[in-house]
Amino acid sequence: MSDLTVIVEPGQHDVVVTRSFDAPRDVVFKAMTSPEHLSKWWGLKESETVIDRAELRRGGSWRFVERMPDGQTYAFHGVVHDLVAPERFVQTFEYEGMPGHVCLETHSLEERDGRTLYTSVTVFQSVEDRDGMVESGMEEGLGQSMDSLDEVIATLR
Amino acid sequence: MSDLTVIVEPGQHDVVVTRSFDAPRDVVFKAMTSPEHLSKWWGLKESETVIDRAELRRGGSWRFVERMPDGQTYAFHGVVHDLVAPERFVQTFEYEGMPGHVCLETHSLEERDGRTLYTSVTVFQSVEDRDGMVESGMEEGLGQSMDSLDEVIATLR
Repeated sequence: MSDLTVIVEPGQHDVVVTRSFDAPRDVVFKAMTSPEHLSKWWGLKESETVIDRAELRRGGSWRFVERMPDGQTYAFHGVVHDLVAPERFVQTFEYEGMPGHVCLETHSLEERDGRTLYTSVTVFQSVEDRDGMVESGMEEGLGQSMDSLDEVIATLR
Repeated sequence: MSDLTVIVEPGQHDVVVTRSFDAPRDVVFKAMTSPEHLSKWWGLKESETVIDRAELRRGGSWRFVERMPDGQTYAFHGVVHDLVAPERFVQTFEYEGMPGHVCLETHSLEERDGRTLYTSVTVFQSVEDRDGMVESGMEEGLGQSMDSLDEVIATLR
């Protein structure tokens, strides 16, 4: 049962997401940031995600390509500002279908009684960019990714 | 005469800065992004800026250290998400005195009749972070940096 929350306040630049996972923080962090696990949970359930680059360390770059069942591909990339295992990482994010629209993501993990609370704060360059991302179905895609991540974590516990 | 504007709307995550320079865009871009020029204009007038790292290209990292007349130093670093000369660059920014507080800066240049209009949009992780930066005297420091940049540009025209 997912306790995903997605907070999108009107007229603001940010989206705040929380979800808990039934595993210690280091397990969740590993599932979130290891290339071999990332390809299993990142993106929609029906798509296949290819990790083109995943230098998940301070100053590294990442690029993921999502392939849909109809063969259509969607690519995303960014740079990692900071990564402090197993606490948090801060990175940029750009969908290559809308070049020049960049956001800053802060992903944090807190452990509470053996469970882990995940929080992400994403800030966009404008409120319009934020609203466009939300309207494109971000919440649905995110929910699917988080459920898949939960399944990956279950195999690592 | 500076036409600097700094827009800080209440309750928002961003700061928008504009200023024009009396030079073509490629000259302004060069002055803004070349390490040999950066050290001359970046930071307060009374400080000395040492360019520790300036990999100003997509995926590069930067770190600048500002030394005040009393010997106190202030360091800043980030990663470059994108750089398209002479149009724009997008990078992260963190003041090392407040670790974990990161912002995303988008710097754009437009040429109009031989002059260049510079616009920067900076988005912070929270409204509180944005307000803290503004209250720390950001506008004064920015004004001094922009005036020094103007002087550097005058030597390159």
